[in-house]
Amino acid sequence: MYKLHAFAQSGNCYKVALALDVLGQPWEPVFIDFFGGQIRSVQYRESVNELGEAPVLDDGVLRLTQSGVILTHLAHQHGRFGGGAEAQQREVLRWLLYDNHKFTSYFATYRFMYSLADAAPVPAVMDFLHARFSTAFAVVDKHLQHSAFIVGDAPTIADFSMCGYLFYPVEESGVDVRPKYPAIGRWLQRIQALPGWRGPYECLPGERIAPRPRS
Amino acid sequence: MYKLHAFAQSGNCYKVALALDVLGQPWEPVFIDFFGGQIRSVQYRESVNELGEAPVLDDGVLRLTQSGVILTHLAHQHGRFGGGAEAQQREVLRWLLYDNHKFTSYFATYRFMYSLADAAPVPAVMDFLHARFSTAFAVVDKHLQHSAFIVGDAPTIADFSMCGYLFYPVEESGVDVRPKYPAIGRWLQRIQALPGWRGPYECLPGERIAPRPRS
Repeated sequence: MYKLHAFAQSGNCYKVALALDVLGQPWEPVFIDFFGGQIRSVQYRESVNELGEAPVLDDGVLRLTQSGVILTHLAHQHGRFGGGAEAQQREVLRWLLYDNHKFTSYFATYRFMYSLADAAPVPAVMDFLHARFSTAFAVVDKHLQHSAFIVGDAPTIADFSMCGYLFYPVEESGVDVRPKYPAIGRWLQRIQALPGWRGPYECLPGERIAPRPRS
Repeated sequence: MYKLHAFAQSGNCYKVALALDVLGQPWEPVFIDFFGGQIRSVQYRESVNELGEAPVLDDGVLRLTQSGVILTHLAHQHGRFGGGAEAQQREVLRWLLYDNHKFTSYFATYRFMYSLADAAPVPAVMDFLHARFSTAFAVVDKHLQHSAFIVGDAPTIADFSMCGYLFYPVEESGVDVRPKYPAIGRWLQRIQALPGWRGPYECLPGERIAPRPRS
């Protein structure tokens, strides 16, 4: 059985949990105490993941890190959600890279600073990140106006990767994505309708984030 | 013959140019007038790349975008630099994703704001990006203390991706990477020694960036 080292507040962890659920694979979460400093520890970096990142997936044989690598591995292993022909597989990779580079990355960092970081957000940095993820969201919204899923008319791991941070409560980021980007909203509904779908706080250990007091 | 739509100031373009050179493949650059607004144009987004990114590679049959996708395609096509066994291929993908997420991304944005953007850099944003790429540089420097190349003892496309922004003149970013991260410095020397290596301004069209006047 798969063991997924993860915590619910991480959309990168949730991406993999969602893939396992939609694949119908039994799996077991192993809680990573991110807020207790587990990922920053020397032990974690030396013996689990030198990149200091979650999630980590044990499949009984391999221990894998980086959500995009894990998703690619799961797609190969089960022959599902990897894209059919070679051209589609390249598209899946292209969107996985775009997600890591510009879509998840800026939004996840924004949300982290908005509600999770110890320090209060720095307005200039928040403005910078907001402008960056807004550009990426507009690109993706435009793309989804003509495509049911990220690559063609069936879900792939590119969808699981890109939706990862968009199923969290609005108050965790202060950004209500669905009304502003309606094609993204409809796409999230399609993902949510996939058999096996659960939200991050339903499938992974960890508490919903209490809103930071705001002046 | 390959046609690479690119411009010299873009490390993402240079990553692919370098791979073609080290593969010993003949190729021809097609200048993208980034600073004249070509990539921001509707025409470019609608008919070349909806993500609004460079480079683009035409190989006679396919038109490919996103440096990581192009590098992966070239590695498959020529059976070189993709990593040998499956475990190595996964490592290559892991570092390509890490590069897009945290290594190139933060440093390239920092350099862009330092010397290329129209607007003067915002100190808080520069501090944020500096902290982020410094963390990533430290991770990679540590990794390279025990490894000649990013994945094992031979170069792969992960190296070509990650080194892309590190062969530009120091004054373009104000960051002298080599003395601060000696293992990265030695790795860059190893890459520079590969047959076929050329610097970005030697292989791609585009002028070296004039330093921004500083107070």
